[in-house]
Order: sequence, then structure tokens, then C-alpha cells
Amino acid sequence: MTTRNSPVAVVSSRGAQRLREGKVWVYRSDTVELPERPGLYPVLDVRERTLGWALVNAASEISVRLLTRGEESADEQLITARLDAALAYRSSLKLSADAHRLVHAEADGLPGLVVDRYGDVLVVQNGTAALEPYLGVIVDALVRRLQPRGVLARHEGRVRTLEGLESGTYTLYGEVPDKLTVHEPSARGEVKYLVDPYRGQKTGAFLDQRENRLLLGQYAWGQALDVFSYHGSFGLHLAGQAEHVELIDASAPALARARENMELNGFGNVTYSEANAFDRLRELKREGGVYGAISLDPPALAKLKKDLPNAYRAYKELNLRALRLLDVGGVLGTTSCSFHVSESEFYGMLQDAAADAGVRVRVLARRGQAMDHPELLGVAETRYLKFALVQRLG
Amino acid sequence: MTTRNSPVAVVSSRGAQRLREGKVWVYRSDTVELPERPGLYPVLDVRERTLGWALVNAASEISVRLLTRGEESADEQLITARLDAALAYRSSLKLSADAHRLVHAEADGLPGLVVDRYGDVLVVQNGTAALEPYLGVIVDALVRRLQPRGVLARHEGRVRTLEGLESGTYTLYGEVPDKLTVHEPSARGEVKYLVDPYRGQKTGAFLDQRENRLLLGQYAWGQALDVFSYHGSFGLHLAGQAEHVELIDASAPALARARENMELNGFGNVTYSEANAFDRLRELKREGGVYGAISLDPPALAKLKKDLPNAYRAYKELNLRALRLLDVGGVLGTTSCSFHVSESEFYGMLQDAAADAGVRVRVLARRGQAMDHPELLGVAETRYLKFALVQRLG
Repeated sequence: MTTRNSPVAVVSSRGAQRLREGKVWVYRSDTVELPERPGLYPVLDVRERTLGWALVNAASEISVRLLTRGEESADEQLITARLDAALAYRSSLKLSADAHRLVHAEADGLPGLVVDRYGDVLVVQNGTAALEPYLGVIVDALVRRLQPRGVLARHEGRVRTLEGLESGTYTLYGEVPDKLTVHEPSARGEVKYLVDPYRGQKTGAFLDQRENRLLLGQYAWGQALDVFSYHGSFGLHLAGQAEHVELIDASAPALARARENMELNGFGNVTYSEANAFDRLRELKREGGVYGAISLDPPALAKLKKDLPNAYRAYKELNLRALRLLDVGGVLGTTSCSFHVSESEFYGMLQDAAADAGVRVRVLARRGQAMDHPELLGVAETRYLKFALVQRLG
Repeated sequence: MTTRNSPVAVVSSRGAQRLREGKVWVYRSDTVELPERPGLYPVLDVRERTLGWALVNAASEISVRLLTRGEESADEQLITARLDAALAYRSSLKLSADAHRLVHAEADGLPGLVVDRYGDVLVVQNGTAALEPYLGVIVDALVRRLQPRGVLARHEGRVRTLEGLESGTYTLYGEVPDKLTVHEPSARGEVKYLVDPYRGQKTGAFLDQRENRLLLGQYAWGQALDVFSYHGSFGLHLAGQAEHVELIDASAPALARARENMELNGFGNVTYSEANAFDRLRELKREGGVYGAISLDPPALAKLKKDLPNAYRAYKELNLRALRLLDVGGVLGTTSCSFHVSESEFYGMLQDAAADAGVRVRVLARRGQAMDHPELLGVAETRYLKFALVQRLG
């Protein structure tokens, strides 16, 4: 390599090929030279042609995350401009929900960065070491533009460890309460729910399913089930439409919070079952239960690619048991949030489950994440959620 | 085979296996014995076990189309009940559009039968010989329940020939005008358009794209293009939101009808280009055009599986040219209605097109047919439409 005035990242011809195909990540094995310190650097191919600028981290498996193509350099201004574009896009969505995603990492041109809004509180989660030095700039810009009451860092998860970053949850600005009430549209108007930004799943709640909750609620009737209910986020939409809803979750604290949420909305037509979902579904079938609406929203069953065969069996078994409980005309809202389960595997699983259950079903709608969680073409990981609205035929 | 009192269809073990996997079609090559006349018959496996009842036609490649599983017999009552269920489902959708699909063939348990509503007129299209004798019953039931002004048969297409049925367009009930005005929701309220049920595409219009037109309209801005505009159905949604829209179509009569539709809605911000889409897109790029919204809705480029390689190239070229015309923040609503182009091929094509165009894009939403055109699991043909709402990033 020639001596240069300032450090750069050099990628192999395979790495360069990936970037030319529209991908934005280069793995360490496809790099030739990397700067010592994480940061913003030009990316060159082995013939010293500039391919763009990137967030670079030699310590990370994903060493290069491209920000720009060609000669356009990346700096603080670029990051702020990307943040503004992300906020402008959410404005264009005209969201009536006051809990939604403002920045969706790669798909907003800010790799590894998530910013969620919960009413007047923002939660930031960063998973890229090269972006960490810019967090001050990012938080300043967020505060100036949105004037939140507080900004919380939820710097957690395996990704930070892999990037060589420390983990922690702490206030970055103002004051952040541990109990917030937020709102989202429902078939009957809106529902309210409580969020603990310090301890809730992800940054506090599952915002990616918001549109799917509304959709399932619109077609719910009769007796309903919310399987893997967590804090009852699907259940709230079922309770407003169905005669009665049973929430099933293995966690007593999750169900206690679900009960608070139901009471907050004045829903009394709810029972809470602390149980294993597989067992409870079988039990309900034995008892002769028949349902007009079921939500099935299990945790990621295939966290790693090698989990796939077991995960497929588990998803199929859950869906089979749920389908057997459906009344004619009843609807099932079924989810997989495992990135490793592809769209075609998910629908294949569903078809197998229906055949084994001996139930004729049709798909009313295929959905993914809500529109505030867009997908970047070329980064398959940004399209992880599969949601099907399924109806039993006579 | 033993002698039986009444004719039955017998399927091979491979045919029986298909049915057990949840599929509803058995091809002639997977049958062992078929009744001479098309009609409703029990379906047995080679060990004489009843698998269900089906629409059977020995003259058709798809000889068996299953209606029921197990011993449940199929008759006139079953067909009427299926029709009622189909109507009940459309009521549950609370559609504000007065042009929509009432019966979507296999996905409503009525193989080969399509019924569309255009205001107070119904259009029926049947593609299954075994269902033909029941058309009288079906039309009677439709008239009793919906009290239309008229019912038209659009009995056309290759499928009818393959089934050994005659083709023709004729009135089945009442009076059917050749010019109807229908309405659908738009970002600004609603748009109106004209339908000729005798001569319009499909049964008169492309109802399957209704939700996608609304979606694209919601995010349209700046200068807009409607490529392969036909009667301007996407263009109407663009004209209401964008400063100006250019409609591109190779057919002068299609553009003349598009102009009528625009005038009906009072849109004057429209130009009409009678041109080849490939050429016109290239020309617009040369002229330096930059667009905030583009609809790209080509006819099925892969009508047969063997067309796929050429179709892939044509789709990619069209999308590449459209993406090059997008402004930063601009949106492209891009469609493939070719069943043979799979979901993953479609999104792969889009990624290739973006890489070759040198444009960073994200997918805001993946969609298919509108919810009045549901998909039957196990019949891949019922999921034919791919629609992506794509946005150019900075």
C-alpha cells in the first residue's frame, strides 16, 4: 500500500463488488486495510478508486457500513442532514400514533442508529462504534428540532459488545420518567398503553407491529386470544372489538402490565393466563374453545441461522394449534420476527400448518414492519418482520 | 375399478398427496378415472377413500378443483352458501369504493368464478366448465341479494377455451350500460372514473390495484409520471397531489379515456404522451426531468414461464429508467402483475435496477392485491400482484 496523508479503508475486489451491487456492508474478511480507530473514512478498492465514505470499525465483523457513494464525503453535516431527512419522512407519514420510530438505522442512512419517540420522550439506541462520537451532535439536533422532555440512551445488546462498545441505560437530556402513556389508532378510535423506556422490550415497546395491530383489530369478532401477549398490545385491539379476549403469556409481570393497560382503556372483557403458549392452546382445544380472532406473536424463535429447523417446527406447531381453534370466518394475525425465517419459508410453514390442521385458510393481507420502519434494498436484515392476516374458510 | 352407482373422480396417489398438502388443484396427469361430463363429483383416492367433492372436468388440464374436504358433499346449496360468505366478507371490509371484487375464484371457494361490482352493475366471468351449469343459480342469488341494475357476462379468455367453453359477452340480467361512473378513495377524498364493462380490461377495470393507487397518491409530490397509464387510474391519484402529471401510454384510445377521467375530476394539470414507455423514459432523462412521484404499471411481461428471462430484463430496464428520474425523496410505485415473477425475483430485480442506476433506495411498503382479492394458501396463482412503494434516498 502507498503511504497516505490520512487513514482509509481498503476493501477486496469481492468487497468492492458487494458495494457495486447496492449492498452497504462489507465484512472484515472482504477488507484489505482498515484504520485503527472507528470513525468516518473513505473506502477505496484495491486500485485506489474511491467507492464512497463509510462508518468503519476494524473491531467489528461488519467493518464497513457505507454512507455515501462516489466522492461525496461524510461528516457531521451529512449525519445531521440524514437525521433531518428521517424526521421529514416521519412527518410525511402523518402518524396519529405518538409512539413511533424516527430513525431506522441503515434504512435512514444512519447505520446502527435507532431513535424512537414515546410521546415527549425520545429513546436512542446506537449499535455502531463509528457513530458513537457523533451521538452528542445527534442528540443536540433532536432536542433542537423536537424539544422533547427527555432523551434516554438504551445502549444495550449483543451488537454493542460485538462493536467493542460498553452497554448502559442513562439519560442524555432532560428528564425521562419510567412510566409514560402513549396512544395509537385502533378500529374504534385509539387505544392507550403504558411504556417503561428504561426496561420495556427493545426501546420500550414493539412499535413495528403498530399497523398490524390496527389491521387485526378491524377484523376481530367473537371470542379472542392474544398468544404471547407481553403487555397486551395486540390484546388491546382485540378487546375493543371482540366479546372477550384471553391473554396468554408465561410472564406474570408482563400480564400485570397488560392488566394495567386494559384498565387504562376501560376494558373489562379480559382474562389473563400465565401459561406456556403451546400447552394453553392444546388445553383450549380440549375444552372446545372456538375463536373469531387470534393474535400469535411469538418471540424470535430463530435468533441464529442454525436454529432454523427447530424454529420451523415450533412456528408450525403454534400456528397449527391456533388454526384449529379458529371459527369459520375467524381471523388469525400470525407473526414471525425472525430475520432468518424468509418470507417464503413463513408462508410455506403456514400452508403446512393449515394442511396438518385440516383447515382451509386464505391470506387477506401480507404485511411487514410499519411504514416508519422502512426496508433498505440490499440489506435483508432491515426486512425482518412477517405478519399474515389469515382467515378460516368454511 | 369397481362399478359404482354414480360417476366419481379418482386421483393417483400423487394427486391425493397434493390434496392432503392443502392444494386444491389436481392435474389430469395425476388422475386415474374421470367422469365424462363436467360437474360436481366426489373425489376418491385409489383405495376408494373419499377425499372431498370437486368441480371436475376431464377436458381441462386442471381436471379437479376441490370444493370440500372429507365427506361433505357439494351441491347447489354449497355454492350459494359460498357466494353468501363471499358477500359477507366484502361487507366486513367496509369498502368505500363502489367498484370492487365480490368473488375471487379459488380464494372464495368458487374456483374459476369472478364477480366484480361497478356501482349498480355486476360483471361475471366464469372459467370453469363444471361451474357453468350453476351460473343461473349464481346470478339469481346475486340479483336477490344485491338488486343490481344489470348483470353482464364477460366470458372470455384462453381459460374458457382450455375448459372447452364458448366465449362471449352478453347481458345475464337487466340492463348494462357501456359507460359507468364509479368512485374510489384517494388521498384527498375520492376520485371518479369511467368504466366500460363490455370492453374494459379484465371485467372493466384493474380493481386489484385500488389500495396501491391510494397509497402512492398519499406520498406523491412535485412532478409526476404515470407510465403505462391505460385509463389513468394511477394518474388520477397523482394529479390530485402532484403539481403536474404526464401520462404515458402507447394507445391513443386509452389516453383519450384517461383524458375523460381527468376532466371528470376537474384535473387540468395533466399532459398525455402517446409513446413507447422505454423510449419516453429515456427521452425524459435526456431532457433533465426530475420527478417526485412515478407509477410504473406495465402489462404482464411474463405471461408464460419461458418468458421469464426476457421479462426480467424488461422489468429491470423499466425500473432502472424510472429510478434515474426520481428526485431525492421521490417515490416510485412499481408493479409486476406476472404470476411467474416471484416476490423474491421482483425485489431482486429492483435491487439490481437501483444498483445499476446508482441510486440508493428504500422500500416503504410491500403490497399485493387489494383485500377484496384474497390469496388462497396452496394456490400460488391467487397471489400474482407485486407492488412496491420505493423512495429514493439522498
